[in-house]
Amino acid sequence: MTELDESRQRVHENLQRVTELLHKHELVESLVHRQQGPRQQLVEGLVHKLHLVELQKLLDALHPADVANLLESLPVVQRLIVWDLVKAEREGEILLEVSDAVRQTLIADMDAQELVAATEQLDTDEIADLAPDLPREVFQGVIRSLSPEEREQLRSAMSYPEGTVGALMDFDVISIRDDVTVEVVLRYLRRLDEMPDHTDQLFVVDGTGQLKGLLPINRLLVTRPKTLVTTVMRLDFLKLRPQEKAEDAAGAFERYDLVSAPVVDDRGRLIGRVTVNAVVDYIREETASDMLSAGGLREDEDLFASVWKSVRNRWTWLAVNLVTAFIASRVIGLFEDSIARIVALAALMPIIAGISGNSGNQTITMIVRALALGQITAANARKLFAKEIGVSTLNGLIWGGVVGLFAFLIYHNWQLGLVMTGAMALSLLLASVMGVAIPLAMEKLGRDPAQGASVMITAITDSGGFFIFLGLATVFLV
Amino acid sequence: MTELDESRQRVHENLQRVTELLHKHELVESLVHRQQGPRQQLVEGLVHKLHLVELQKLLDALHPADVANLLESLPVVQRLIVWDLVKAEREGEILLEVSDAVRQTLIADMDAQELVAATEQLDTDEIADLAPDLPREVFQGVIRSLSPEEREQLRSAMSYPEGTVGALMDFDVISIRDDVTVEVVLRYLRRLDEMPDHTDQLFVVDGTGQLKGLLPINRLLVTRPKTLVTTVMRLDFLKLRPQEKAEDAAGAFERYDLVSAPVVDDRGRLIGRVTVNAVVDYIREETASDMLSAGGLREDEDLFASVWKSVRNRWTWLAVNLVTAFIASRVIGLFEDSIARIVALAALMPIIAGISGNSGNQTITMIVRALALGQITAANARKLFAKEIGVSTLNGLIWGGVVGLFAFLIYHNWQLGLVMTGAMALSLLLASVMGVAIPLAMEKLGRDPAQGASVMITAITDSGGFFIFLGLATVFLV
Repeated sequence: MTELDESRQRVHENLQRVTELLHKHELVESLVHRQQGPRQQLVEGLVHKLHLVELQKLLDALHPADVANLLESLPVVQRLIVWDLVKAEREGEILLEVSDAVRQTLIADMDAQELVAATEQLDTDEIADLAPDLPREVFQGVIRSLSPEEREQLRSAMSYPEGTVGALMDFDVISIRDDVTVEVVLRYLRRLDEMPDHTDQLFVVDGTGQLKGLLPINRLLVTRPKTLVTTVMRLDFLKLRPQEKAEDAAGAFERYDLVSAPVVDDRGRLIGRVTVNAVVDYIREETASDMLSAGGLREDEDLFASVWKSVRNRWTWLAVNLVTAFIASRVIGLFEDSIARIVALAALMPIIAGISGNSGNQTITMIVRALALGQITAANARKLFAKEIGVSTLNGLIWGGVVGLFAFLIYHNWQLGLVMTGAMALSLLLASVMGVAIPLAMEKLGRDPAQGASVMITAITDSGGFFIFLGLATVFLV
Repeated sequence: MTELDESRQRVHENLQRVTELLHKHELVESLVHRQQGPRQQLVEGLVHKLHLVELQKLLDALHPADVANLLESLPVVQRLIVWDLVKAEREGEILLEVSDAVRQTLIADMDAQELVAATEQLDTDEIADLAPDLPREVFQGVIRSLSPEEREQLRSAMSYPEGTVGALMDFDVISIRDDVTVEVVLRYLRRLDEMPDHTDQLFVVDGTGQLKGLLPINRLLVTRPKTLVTTVMRLDFLKLRPQEKAEDAAGAFERYDLVSAPVVDDRGRLIGRVTVNAVVDYIREETASDMLSAGGLREDEDLFASVWKSVRNRWTWLAVNLVTAFIASRVIGLFEDSIARIVALAALMPIIAGISGNSGNQTITMIVRALALGQITAANARKLFAKEIGVSTLNGLIWGGVVGLFAFLIYHNWQLGLVMTGAMALSLLLASVMGVAIPLAMEKLGRDPAQGASVMITAITDSGGFFIFLGLATVFLV
């Protein structure tokens, strides 16, 4: 039995233990290199092996997901030492668990034969997940090792792009005919050595493969054996199609508390299923990728990626922000004469831009979330505009007053304070209107409002805030 | 059978249909108010009722989660009209599904009797979720309506704070004794009318309630009836304790692909279970709350909250940012003389602050994620510092060169260009060092690095960027 906190502790302790063993191993290696006497070499070689044997034992006891986490936590050289110690039959599973960036470093270290062997333990839907990272000749070797049926499954699984139901789908379905009794089903099941994970229901099909209903295992257990499948099967259920969005399927799993759901083709024939563990992995990956892109990283970065790879992963975002910063800089450039006369403007202007940027991002966050939940219609969009304008007006009075007071206290100039208050109020108004309008417009144009809306609002509130503040100052103060 | 895209379409269509019906209903209401003739009134009253009857039919056909989404999408007045049409026995389930903010608006509309009735359909762990929002006297009424065993469960469920395993736990466990055969178990199950959702395994306990093992339903089905439970039950499994972190449990469900896991007390006795649907809901809520706090919202805001409530939800974040903006403003204030002499500095300084802020946030994002995955140790922290310093140096050369060139092209002053390049490089270095140091320090101090690290880095890169750029300019140009 495993305790959760043991398991959590263990992740960290394992990492430390592995680092320790690797460190000893490296020490010995460097000794061996220095002292080339044959006897010395022999002794050190044995000690050296001892560490690796201990390391291997530790790895064998870990779940593949935990080995994957360990590999991600190690710098590349040490990562590959550990990877060499992993048993060949576990390599496939572990490759599935590591992040894309780390997977590439591992695959680069394996020869074709090893790679083909690693995939042999995997299901076709799992091979499809690895396929994009495999060298061409390896992939062809893998295909040759499959049965015709598996080859067809692999082709099917690979034909659906990431982010679709097809990409989440597996083929581990137990389907039963609709014209049998519960007793027959139970006998059939007992002949199987084991059932696929996450089999909470059997899929009932007719002679042509058409999906007719679902028979939950739990219902099967409480039904009298002589009952016909058709009389106990569920008819009200959700079926998925492979080309549908994974995000929508995830939403349905969450709303309807599903463990598995059937996937059917256009003619209603059962082709696979989606399970909740695929959905959980999908949600976690989406969350991570949203978090990364919100933080300006293009993709999940290997913690120990080379400097050059990291720079490339981050440059798009920096370049976009540089362009918006240049624009804002030119807006300020328009008012250089005013700043030369009242230099306090330079010190005060970042306040206006910063606060309206924050406020705009608050609005965007709320609207993007409501859009994702499908809660916005033409009818309530108007109410949302009205509400946000109300909020920004009130905020304008409150925060405008505070910043105006700040300006007055520092520069003892009440006109400057008034301009500051007015500029803050107007900038907040701009931020709130654009904060609603940008995501709605992106949605209407078929773009994902979660991507890029934040950059746009910041660009607008920066340049807009500078323009409003310096413009008002030029009109009223200069 | 339901198609996924029907279900998605439906969410939106339902919202539109409901809005339409509500609109007609309101039109009729206003007519009735204007024309008080008794006959007219009667006719209009009938039409009016017709709309509501249609609306009610529509609502009855929807899943509670879909009704919840609908309620969240409606302005408060319309929301309450719809809420009144919901059948009493479904109110409890729907209250569980709506967001906290919307739940409060619904509960405020119900009298004590209705509320007690709504909770009657719920399990004790669900009542515990609602409890904080119930008026005191209602809650006491609910307690009185429970059996002693349920009361004990409710007390237990409520004793664990949000974010713990105890808060995710339910009590729908089927436990079996360890000294029986599979046949006995099957007979026992067949006597149940139905099994709880997400029962993928039975919990095997001894005479004292100690958890001895798990019997997966799927294994039960493929085992010969005469076999003893002890010989087929699983002994290697994860058990949770109620006081452990929900986050860790969610991680374990993800890593080990679980559908349910037992919860035991300190003496190893079975007290409940956690199911994957509770975990999925938890992950979604955590994601939403991370997204909201990253966007500067304290909590999930009712889309149609009053202006005043929204202002309060958002003010903390704005206040914190105002303070950091004031500090940055005073840093600029130190260099007003330099700006008065070279006004171009005012236009260029936001570029330095902005880009180093973005770069610092990229580093923070990566480190916070690695910390969450437990991938950082004392040994590799040094390597991470080295890597980030390398990245920022290279970025400093690239982006420093670009901004230097920009400054030179606009102001035809190569010294200004050089200062710009140097300031960019130094600010990026500051951003990278602080981007690693801040989350590591927060982790060491036992704070959540996901909260607040981003505000801190932005404050430092703003003030620091201004200081470095204006300082260098003062030394070399003025």
